[in-house]
Amino acid sequence: MAAAADEVEQPDSGPRMSGTERLTAFSDGVFAIVITLLVLELRVPEYHEGGLLAALRGENASYLAFVVSFTYVGVIWLNHHALVRLVRATTLALSWINLAILFGAVIIPFPTAVLASALTHGDTDDRRTAVALYALSAALMSAPWLLFFAYLHRHPALLKPEVSREHVRAQRLRPLTGLVLYGLSGLLGWFVDPILGLVGIIVMIVYHAVTSEGLRGGWPRRRPAGHGR
Amino acid sequence: MAAAADEVEQPDSGPRMSGTERLTAFSDGVFAIVITLLVLELRVPEYHEGGLLAALRGENASYLAFVVSFTYVGVIWLNHHALVRLVRATTLALSWINLAILFGAVIIPFPTAVLASALTHGDTDDRRTAVALYALSAALMSAPWLLFFAYLHRHPALLKPEVSREHVRAQRLRPLTGLVLYGLSGLLGWFVDPILGLVGIIVMIVYHAVTSEGLRGGWPRRRPAGHGR
Amino acid sequence: MAAAADEVEQPDSGPRMSGTERLTAFSDGVFAIVITLLVLELRVPEYHEGGLLAALRGENASYLAFVVSFTYVGVIWLNHHALVRLVRATTLALSWINLAILFGAVIIPFPTAVLASALTHGDTDDRRTAVALYALSAALMSAPWLLFFAYLHRHPALLKPEVSREHVRAQRLRPLTGLVLYGLSGLLGWFVDPILGLVGIIVMIVYHAVTSEGLRGGWPRRRPAGHGR
Amino acid sequence: MAAAADEVEQPDSGPRMSGTERLTAFSDGVFAIVITLLVLELRVPEYHEGGLLAALRGENASYLAFVVSFTYVGVIWLNHHALVRLVRATTLALSWINLAILFGAVIIPFPTAVLASALTHGDTDDRRTAVALYALSAALMSAPWLLFFAYLHRHPALLKPEVSREHVRAQRLRPLTGLVLYGLSGLLGWFVDPILGLVGIIVMIVYHAVTSEGLRGGWPRRRPAGHGR
Repeated sequence: MAAAADEVEQPDSGPRMSGTERLTAFSDGVFAIVITLLVLELRVPEYHEGGLLAALRGENASYLAFVVSFTYVGVIWLNHHALVRLVRATTLALSWINLAILFGAVIIPFPTAVLASALTHGDTDDRRTAVALYALSAALMSAPWLLFFAYLHRHPALLKPEVSREHVRAQRLRPLTGLVLYGLSGLLGWFVDPILGLVGIIVMIVYHAVTSEGLRGGWPRRRPAGHGR
Repeated sequence: MAAAADEVEQPDSGPRMSGTERLTAFSDGVFAIVITLLVLELRVPEYHEGGLLAALRGENASYLAFVVSFTYVGVIWLNHHALVRLVRATTLALSWINLAILFGAVIIPFPTAVLASALTHGDTDDRRTAVALYALSAALMSAPWLLFFAYLHRHPALLKPEVSREHVRAQRLRPLTGLVLYGLSGLLGWFVDPILGLVGIIVMIVYHAVTSEGLRGGWPRRRPAGHGR
Repeated sequence: MAAAADEVEQPDSGPRMSGTERLTAFSDGVFAIVITLLVLELRVPEYHEGGLLAALRGENASYLAFVVSFTYVGVIWLNHHALVRLVRATTLALSWINLAILFGAVIIPFPTAVLASALTHGDTDDRRTAVALYALSAALMSAPWLLFFAYLHRHPALLKPEVSREHVRAQRLRPLTGLVLYGLSGLLGWFVDPILGLVGIIVMIVYHAVTSEGLRGGWPRRRPAGHGR
Repeated sequence: MAAAADEVEQPDSGPRMSGTERLTAFSDGVFAIVITLLVLELRVPEYHEGGLLAALRGENASYLAFVVSFTYVGVIWLNHHALVRLVRATTLALSWINLAILFGAVIIPFPTAVLASALTHGDTDDRRTAVALYALSAALMSAPWLLFFAYLHRHPALLKPEVSREHVRAQRLRPLTGLVLYGLSGLLGWFVDPILGLVGIIVMIVYHAVTSEGLRGGWPRRRPAGHGR
């Protein structure tokens, strides 16, 4: 039973712990919904009889924004996957930090829609605004990941036995990179050129995609002998 | 197999019982969808070329309503998590009470959208209406939680062995507080000032967030020795 | 691992069987989404400043349609729950019959929206149409349930050991009742009075809610002794 | 615990592997959402009092597009089900290939809406465009399936013990057929007649439905004796 599997041994002191099953299922649900809801922003454009093809071609910016955000949510899901694999239990505080991570994922369709709109209908000022909003959302989204690692580092009882605190500490580097470089992309988009900012965002998403298993530094490769099943 | 895990020992009398796995999965699905659908209320505002930034700034009330409702659904999910952890099996009646709890969660996007609309486009009367509707929804949502605890109290066979009936009885206090104080927030918003009512609602959501592990009163801290896995 | 749990012993002949885990998870996902999407039909009505309360009151039919359909999806979920509890494995054909059941659930938001619209903006002819459409959808939805039971009756290898073929045969009565009585409600709504038809629909939903554990006839109450866990 | 179940033995070399549980749950979530979101394209048509029935009848193309796409997503889900049953573990690369498969599923509501619109409001040119877009989406969707099988063929350590590399190689035939024949349907729709192209698409969906358990060629029928549970 899910409920039964949710029980973990309680430490003698410290906050009450519970299993990660529902946290994982809930997070997976949220990521699956966000990545799918993005398609609702792809609307049939208005067209006159015979003009559908031309109208569809006019929506190129929407398709670009869709692909970027689909990839972005995929990246977040994979990173979250690697994150949850570190922990054996959660607490109320960690669940709230996780909700903050989900908050960052849930809002993605909004800056995506703003970006698609600005690229299609806006002028340079509007594109500035849209790129900066997207980058700002992405930069702020990094903050709860930092909190997550910091919390784990202070509560090693929540970690799986094979995960070292050093590994957790090393992982902070990636959201920190995200916070700084998404922020810079936003500034670039706002003060210099929106397209440059957008390129910065896309580069960052690819960076997170490639490293989404976690930076390799302190990760202990598990020995086959240890798992006799 | 999920289906197999769904079987529980049947009592000699009383209603037929079944496992909580699908109830949990279904509820988690509903919460994950509601918390994500909220973003659909964040629409790209209409704007003239060059006016995107100003238009986005005009939607502050929508962002506030979004954050409040996201937190609210998060709170409900965590509370539901703690609720399901008390039970080892469900019955048809308990499943319907759970559906009533989900009903309360599912409607949240509607008062949220009404609130955002009234704060942006309405006058004081409209805000009164919107705050009262939000508070009324929240107050009514507390009712099935009361029923849930009352039903568990009368059917202790559904409880996990380590959960005492006194603990269940003590938990009634929180939905009762919710019923009364959300109701008062609504009255405050309607008769005195909508902003005061809204502050009352936010205070209540924070209260439920902080206590979402259940009030500590009768909770038996589980001893590590009892779980030899 | 989910994949591993998905394996079942294969019979020497007959169609290939597989576990019910993904079928259950997928179905639960669909039901959770449908029941939550219904809220998207509750839109903020258009209103002039100060007219929000009056505008909200004008949407009573939408609220009624929402509550009826929420209950209806809840009923289908509970019935599906009881259905899956009978089987220990599925085949390709049974998976398609299950998809037909899900089809019936997935479309519910559409007749719901039509009903809400007709009750709010339509004349008697429109209400006739809307009630008949809702009843027709519900009647047709009963058909794949009949197929499901018929298929199980012919492939007893898919049943759990403790479930008798007589029990399965007896269960056909309920979708048959649904097919006939939803159909009659539709005819009543179309030829006599839409409100009468709507009452017929609501009565049927309540009937299915009360009997959603399955008709008791042949159900073997499981003995506690048989499950030593 | 889900997290615990997610661990698999690591090979001495090659990419890091992890269990398929979250990949399966996430994919099922996405499929469940896509198949349900399709209903959002069924909108209540605009009508004058008394004209609801006629207005609903004018939406026949929407119903057809809905049924075709519902079946299509069902087919993809069943095929994915059979796909995941081959593997015992995933890697980062395989997870990205899986995300590409999900991308193909997630976009379906868009060509569906375009098709429904063109059949209802467009002229022959618009239908050409819509049918070609649908076929193109379906053809491109076959590509990541090819990649999936190719990757598995090169990394047999990811396969379940009872699955032979020959079986995996044989499975490539189906996405290849899809790539070619959906492509031909698109060309047929674009250069000859949109209705012919649509018929081609429907035939292909039925073909994939019937073969969704995998082509039988190399599949080793599992012997009951091998699974003593």
